[in-house]
Amino acid sequence: MQFNAAQIASLINGNIEGDDTIPVSSFGKIEQAQKGQLAFLANPKYEEYLYTTDASIIIINDSQEIKQKLDATLIRVPDAYSAFATILASYKKMITAQLNGIQQPVYISATAKIGENVYIGAFSYVGDNVIIGDNVKIFPQVFLGDNTTIDEDTILYPGVKIYHECVIGKRVTVHANTIIGSDGFGFAPQKDGTFKKVPQIGNVVIEDDVEVGANATIDRATLGSTLIKRGAKLDNLIQIAHNVEVGNNTVIAAQAGISGSTKIGNNVMIGGQAGVVGHLQIADGTKINAQSGVSKSIKTPNSYVTGSPAYDYTSALRSQVLSRNLPNIEKRIMELEQLMQQFVAEKISS
Amino acid sequence: MQFNAAQIASLINGNIEGDDTIPVSSFGKIEQAQKGQLAFLANPKYEEYLYTTDASIIIINDSQEIKQKLDATLIRVPDAYSAFATILASYKKMITAQLNGIQQPVYISATAKIGENVYIGAFSYVGDNVIIGDNVKIFPQVFLGDNTTIDEDTILYPGVKIYHECVIGKRVTVHANTIIGSDGFGFAPQKDGTFKKVPQIGNVVIEDDVEVGANATIDRATLGSTLIKRGAKLDNLIQIAHNVEVGNNTVIAAQAGISGSTKIGNNVMIGGQAGVVGHLQIADGTKINAQSGVSKSIKTPNSYVTGSPAYDYTSALRSQVLSRNLPNIEKRIMELEQLMQQFVAEKISS
Amino acid sequence: MQFNAAQIASLINGNIEGDDTIPVSSFGKIEQAQKGQLAFLANPKYEEYLYTTDASIIIINDSQEIKQKLDATLIRVPDAYSAFATILASYKKMITAQLNGIQQPVYISATAKIGENVYIGAFSYVGDNVIIGDNVKIFPQVFLGDNTTIDEDTILYPGVKIYHECVIGKRVTVHANTIIGSDGFGFAPQKDGTFKKVPQIGNVVIEDDVEVGANATIDRATLGSTLIKRGAKLDNLIQIAHNVEVGNNTVIAAQAGISGSTKIGNNVMIGGQAGVVGHLQIADGTKINAQSGVSKSIKTPNSYVTGSPAYDYTSALRSQVLSRNLPNIEKRIMELEQLMQQFVAEKISS
Repeated sequence: MQFNAAQIASLINGNIEGDDTIPVSSFGKIEQAQKGQLAFLANPKYEEYLYTTDASIIIINDSQEIKQKLDATLIRVPDAYSAFATILASYKKMITAQLNGIQQPVYISATAKIGENVYIGAFSYVGDNVIIGDNVKIFPQVFLGDNTTIDEDTILYPGVKIYHECVIGKRVTVHANTIIGSDGFGFAPQKDGTFKKVPQIGNVVIEDDVEVGANATIDRATLGSTLIKRGAKLDNLIQIAHNVEVGNNTVIAAQAGISGSTKIGNNVMIGGQAGVVGHLQIADGTKINAQSGVSKSIKTPNSYVTGSPAYDYTSALRSQVLSRNLPNIEKRIMELEQLMQQFVAEKISS
Repeated sequence: MQFNAAQIASLINGNIEGDDTIPVSSFGKIEQAQKGQLAFLANPKYEEYLYTTDASIIIINDSQEIKQKLDATLIRVPDAYSAFATILASYKKMITAQLNGIQQPVYISATAKIGENVYIGAFSYVGDNVIIGDNVKIFPQVFLGDNTTIDEDTILYPGVKIYHECVIGKRVTVHANTIIGSDGFGFAPQKDGTFKKVPQIGNVVIEDDVEVGANATIDRATLGSTLIKRGAKLDNLIQIAHNVEVGNNTVIAAQAGISGSTKIGNNVMIGGQAGVVGHLQIADGTKINAQSGVSKSIKTPNSYVTGSPAYDYTSALRSQVLSRNLPNIEKRIMELEQLMQQFVAEKISS
Repeated sequence: MQFNAAQIASLINGNIEGDDTIPVSSFGKIEQAQKGQLAFLANPKYEEYLYTTDASIIIINDSQEIKQKLDATLIRVPDAYSAFATILASYKKMITAQLNGIQQPVYISATAKIGENVYIGAFSYVGDNVIIGDNVKIFPQVFLGDNTTIDEDTILYPGVKIYHECVIGKRVTVHANTIIGSDGFGFAPQKDGTFKKVPQIGNVVIEDDVEVGANATIDRATLGSTLIKRGAKLDNLIQIAHNVEVGNNTVIAAQAGISGSTKIGNNVMIGGQAGVVGHLQIADGTKINAQSGVSKSIKTPNSYVTGSPAYDYTSALRSQVLSRNLPNIEKRIMELEQLMQQFVAEKISS
């Protein structure tokens, strides 16, 4: 798609300096942008590129001074970064809205109900009694098990697998090959050392405005629901075990894992590769540092923990510094011991 | 499917109190259950829900006293939890047994051999000389490479990919998008800094009664077999490298990884996000705590280790406590140093 | 496929001892090999198997003495392991070259351009304007988004998903269900606690001779490109975040993760389950130990770090030893304190 400077300026309510008919068809970083691309300058650190870039249009802050002659058309706005983000979001929305219709071959059960303006890509599988809301976009090779519900405006990228009975809200995004609703890891140990499977017959409920990254796994509950609440954002390769609850607007970075039945509060931030033990409660606003291992419930809201096992961030940092300093600590003890020995020897001999 | 109280009682050999014709069609936790659901009460902590739940049928212990009037039909058994689990397992078995036939489109090589009562979902790929045993259930979008064998009663969930030559036993369950038989990570360093691939031409053998979670990876051996022995249970997102052996009834929690050629014994328990270095031996019955990093072989059966690098659990815990206490230890050394300095000063001046 | 001893000897320029017409059709470890298999003996530790193996042909070093009568045909070469690897590589190449043609059903956009000698497996999806070079092998159930480019001799295993606009080089291998080009994890926090998605409109560029394992994720850049440079080797389940650069011949082991915008130099080695924080620079030749957490840039080439947070390997090892020895250190402090107390008491009383 192609847009000219006038169209872009009108979208972000900006003022044009230069040729308002100049067209762009893609986006670039100001330091790498080519002819036909739209760039922005927000950070004064990159000001030099304003004069060397090949970008056709550049969005800049109202406050930006121009010190040399330049070729690009400029669009001035109060906040260049935010205006650029607005354009990107509109662009993505337009691209997504264009996805439409049902590609062949697909497998759609006769009992499935499909809304208006839906896209279903080739090789996708829609099971019995599935309900797909309006404007849902399902990329190729997706699997929707029997009785799943996918609410309006949700996007499922290629290869997503959603097991039977799961419920996905509005405006949810799930990236490629993520699994929702696989069995929780429940096995009862038997006297002969073997394990007997505990059937997992609950489901997963994902509320509105959640985003889940690629190759992640969210297990169904044993009974009841594993619950990801409104606005939570989960990164690639994360593991959510059975009966977990993840609170509103909680953010979990890549490769982190939450064990069974743990309840994570609202607005929690969990760093990459962190782990949380099962059956815990994590208070609202808690920050868990990357690679931490949380083994106890955190009851005070807005705590900040690190380490494995995790504890208070500031204390942990102090101990980490001292831990690196252990060779020095040992040396000081040895010196004290030597002096002490001398004193003891003198005392005996005196 | 719908069952009445008489049918359920006969399955678990229970005694009915109330209307034995009342029907249920799904399961619920006693605290959330709705009309038409079956629930159970095993833990006296939840007794209050007996009188407030909307469940139509509740399985209870023989020993459970009834203190108020209640609406539900009760079924009494010696062990309510175990009886409930039995019903769930029967239910899952029935559901699975109903899966049958070959959906279209599928790709099945003319040289593949397919047993009785098999389900193959749409968009699955069955390569040359594949052998599929009786009662195997293959969900949509599965890939079975040439010469793979899938033995009786095994379930492969959507998107599972099994590379050529791999051998899967009886009653195995593999969850969605898990990869079995991808190349081991073998590269020979060259003098110019590049790496030359070491071809991986072994396979993966998975014995009977194994369960593997979703989005896991089990690499094929360089030569010979990567081996997962009978009854092992592997969780989501685990990594098993080439030529690893995992013993009978060993349990590996989510996101753990085992490096190449390591042999894990029987009845080992490996916690989430733990890692084991290559070419080690881990004795039977070893317990490896979550997030541990095992860098040496463990020769004593039933050891319990933690930490990264991992060592004896009890010692590690003591050191962890002291490690957190390092600021205090440093303070004590400073006090000793000051006193000592004073003594030395006095001694010189005397 | 079947080969006789004369054909194999000619491929590796070896000298035959025994029947040069004897056929083999597969490979085995010398200790397990069966009739009809080719094995090798390089490590004298395994010499005994030379006399007990059922292998039909064994490749041995020129220097290997034969002390007993044996049945197998021998092929002598200067370096038996290297010769065996050469045969494996030739064998794999032949197998791959046989993959050819387009299986049905597939979805191929009318605007896609497909080279010579290409294999596209059933249920694969090739989007608009995709360019596929000569000799590319695409296994079943692969997704290639619009405008992706796959250069010559590249292999994509089953279920790989490559999002729109990504660029894959020559002789690249990507294992099953790996995701290339999913959205970077970018969300701008809003005043009400919610997050606003930052559209990710860059792409991923993978240069020649890269190998990526199974179930890995490589996110597209926000703007510009996430870049995996020539010859890098990435293992299963690794996470590469948006705008990361991975240098030439850098090796990243399973389950490691690199956070956004970090630049990893050339010939770096990153151990399994290690993590690197965002916006760092890691110097060429750095070695990062398994499970390390790198939180600061590493500026000195060929550094070796370990721990979480990671620092110099040798110092870290010394501190780790002392850390385990903390109970002893505390005991020594207590003894000093007691002696000191005694001195102080005596001094007061004197």
